[in-house]
Amino acid sequence: MRLEVHTRERQEFVDVTREVARAVEESGEKDGVVVVFCPHTTAGVTINEHADPDVAEDILTWLGRTCPRGGDWRHCEGNSDGHVKATLVGSSVTVPVSSGQMQLGTWQGIFFCEFDGPRSRKLEVRVLPERD
Amino acid sequence: MRLEVHTRERQEFVDVTREVARAVEESGEKDGVVVVFCPHTTAGVTINEHADPDVAEDILTWLGRTCPRGGDWRHCEGNSDGHVKATLVGSSVTVPVSSGQMQLGTWQGIFFCEFDGPRSRKLEVRVLPERD
Amino acid sequence: MRLEVHTRERQEFVDVTREVARAVEESGEKDGVVVVFCPHTTAGVTINEHADPDVAEDILTWLGRTCPRGGDWRHCEGNSDGHVKATLVGSSVTVPVSSGQMQLGTWQGIFFCEFDGPRSRKLEVRVLPERD
Repeated sequence: MRLEVHTRERQEFVDVTREVARAVEESGEKDGVVVVFCPHTTAGVTINEHADPDVAEDILTWLGRTCPRGGDWRHCEGNSDGHVKATLVGSSVTVPVSSGQMQLGTWQGIFFCEFDGPRSRKLEVRVLPERD
Repeated sequence: MRLEVHTRERQEFVDVTREVARAVEESGEKDGVVVVFCPHTTAGVTINEHADPDVAEDILTWLGRTCPRGGDWRHCEGNSDGHVKATLVGSSVTVPVSSGQMQLGTWQGIFFCEFDGPRSRKLEVRVLPERD
Repeated sequence: MRLEVHTRERQEFVDVTREVARAVEESGEKDGVVVVFCPHTTAGVTINEHADPDVAEDILTWLGRTCPRGGDWRHCEGNSDGHVKATLVGSSVTVPVSSGQMQLGTWQGIFFCEFDGPRSRKLEVRVLPERD
């Protein structure tokens, strides 16, 4: 299954928890894991708190300070910081599924991480079964 | 399967390799992968050297310097550094299983990474089969 | 399946996309995911742009500045920076497979990340099926 994500800022976390949960339901799988994969090289996917939006903001701010856009980069497209952040955050998350429900912790949400937007992006979702 | 982890420090790596290996054995799966998932937003899970405890200590020290607890954070709970570290380290690891044994490298162990303890924590373990 | 990787520098990204694609083909699996696992503690695996080699170079340069080899490390083997980078980059990647083909994005490649070479290294590859 494929999810579409439309980002509005150069760097932004977009909460996709609900969309992934729906994809898990539609798969009909009851027990196993769901893999959410980002097919972009200046974006990623992470799991973190989605109750307080300040948490995502703090993570983005820290990433921006530690790896600023301007810098002594070789790659000439002006988005090397986005590539670094994509590798730091990672290209996929894997979440357990039981009885057809993602087993996220109380405060956890799944975020699409945009590091070179705004753009139209996508995520690939696969649900893998445990043995029956 | 669920593992319980009790942490004793604010920031600490706890070696859970043995507990995960036991969960793999109990699953009865012979060939596939094991996924270890952390359902917390100020903790994570990583694989690194567990022969010399100084390695985990060096990783924690570097993380603490690069992302200090005190800082210009928006999230008001005083643990934003823990949220950043959770995203850097990641929320799960996936390890190949062959003949019922995790295929970790010689020096590798699996660590629960506490970034806002001490607390009672848990890890979710799922074993996924390859095709017979 | 196991891939052999021979690195030539202390720190280096080696593009293994073609080798992983071949392993997926040889597995005969059509739909699911492929997991690429690094069994070393001073190396990792990541997905990023492989069209312009400057991108990998920029990531390595940033990692080298943010976590330099020389430093106030406890672990006495002189490679603590490599252990830190292994945890930042991660020990595995997971990529969707459809109709026997990895579903990487247009610009994405899979890199073995050497942080304490040159050495002979390996990667473990496992292909997990979706339900038929």
